Amino acid sequence: MAEVVHMIDSEVFLAFSTYATIVILKMMLLSLLTTSCQLRRKVSVDHEDTVFVKSEDDQRKAVRAGPDVERVRRWHQNDLENIVSFVLIGLLYALTGPDLHVALLHFRVFLCSQIVHTVAYMTSLPPPTRTLAFSVGIVCTLSMVYRVLCTAFYL
Amino acid sequence: MAEVVHMIDSEVFLAFSTYATIVILKMMLLSLLTTSCQLRRKVSVDHEDTVFVKSEDDQRKAVRAGPDVERVRRWHQNDLENIVSFVLIGLLYALTGPDLHVALLHFRVFLCSQIVHTVAYMTSLPPPTRTLAFSVGIVCTLSMVYRVLCTAFYL
Amino acid sequence: MAEVVHMIDSEVFLAFSTYATIVILKMMLLSLLTTSCQLRRKVSVDHEDTVFVKSEDDQRKAVRAGPDVERVRRWHQNDLENIVSFVLIGLLYALTGPDLHVALLHFRVFLCSQIVHTVAYMTSLPPPTRTLAFSVGIVCTLSMVYRVLCTAFYL
Repeated sequence: MAEVVHMIDSEVFLAFSTYATIVILKMMLLSLLTTSCQLRRKVSVDHEDTVFVKSEDDQRKAVRAGPDVERVRRWHQNDLENIVSFVLIGLLYALTGPDLHVALLHFRVFLCSQIVHTVAYMTSLPPPTRTLAFSVGIVCTLSMVYRVLCTAFYL
Repeated sequence: MAEVVHMIDSEVFLAFSTYATIVILKMMLLSLLTTSCQLRRKVSVDHEDTVFVKSEDDQRKAVRAGPDVERVRRWHQNDLENIVSFVLIGLLYALTGPDLHVALLHFRVFLCSQIVHTVAYMTSLPPPTRTLAFSVGIVCTLSMVYRVLCTAFYL
Repeated sequence: MAEVVHMIDSEVFLAFSTYATIVILKMMLLSLLTTSCQLRRKVSVDHEDTVFVKSEDDQRKAVRAGPDVERVRRWHQNDLENIVSFVLIGLLYALTGPDLHVALLHFRVFLCSQIVHTVAYMTSLPPPTRTLAFSVGIVCTLSMVYRVLCTAFYL
């Protein structure tokens, strides 16, 4: 963390802001998707939400969450971990003053892996695709972790 | 924040620190609430936690999570997403150097929406309240996203 | 993003970077553990993942998540909340310019509590251990919250 900050107005930080905002935005859209998915399927899991569901049969259906909802929820959790790790590590990484091109490479690869991961989930692409996209994202974050620990290690 | 950080002692950043701390604090209190809720109901889901539960009947009860626990857990997950998005976006937003009054407006509206959301969940207010509070929070964060992307767009 | 920061090259911030990176790294390893645990148990919960599972009996098994997976997932969620709170609060705390020794104390205690918590979960240590480790982590974060709110309170 040598000639440090200065920095926050550096181009690396601008790039970080942009990419971080985009992935967080994606995460928020997923949150809305989960909710809309629950509403469309009439699957709702809180008692105050079942007030409007009239027939008893509908209410019984409403109690157990459909597999679709479970699916989206799991996906969301996965996403949350990935994106939060990326943004927090990315922030520290941007402050170590890396080369702009290397930093952009990291951010772009991560964003691509996120997009592929999302598409793979939504369209149910065959198994290796999603896992591969997930792994690329992890490797990308790990590479930033390596850089941060190399520049700033103070235990 | 005595001899510290220039910039970061701008009033906007001070305000951000305060509001971010409050919402994170709320999230942590929820975490404790979940745990205490589990203990009170004798619902515990890990094997090492059921050591003290003597009778077989109690143990059977202990295995399946009660609806209350599920409720709190879902709420918590919702909260986590909302608050993490707010804090991370808010950090970038505070660094774009917005007008103090506009920034305060964003932070205050978000805090209010969080409080209403929490109260709506705890007292089971009728449906539109919670969804409305949730939406206000989302819109508030999206407005900050817009500002960040306008000031710093470097793809 | 104008007249930026000094500061971030302070030793406190270096220490924060290191500890934050380590705990995030731990969280990511857990994410991989969850996945590998699912694969090893042939428990997989998405339809596109069950393509390779041949026999009908295996497929039926594959549908319901084993208790081990549930266990790891719950642990992960717990971890996520704890670590995210710590990193976000820690960032604000590091920017308030605390004494280096006090800051290191906070970071080290939190890291220890995390390690004990992880070990307690993996080896199923008797009940009070895990809860104690969890509580120490919470108290540590709350102490940082107190410091942040004392130095910077601007509602």
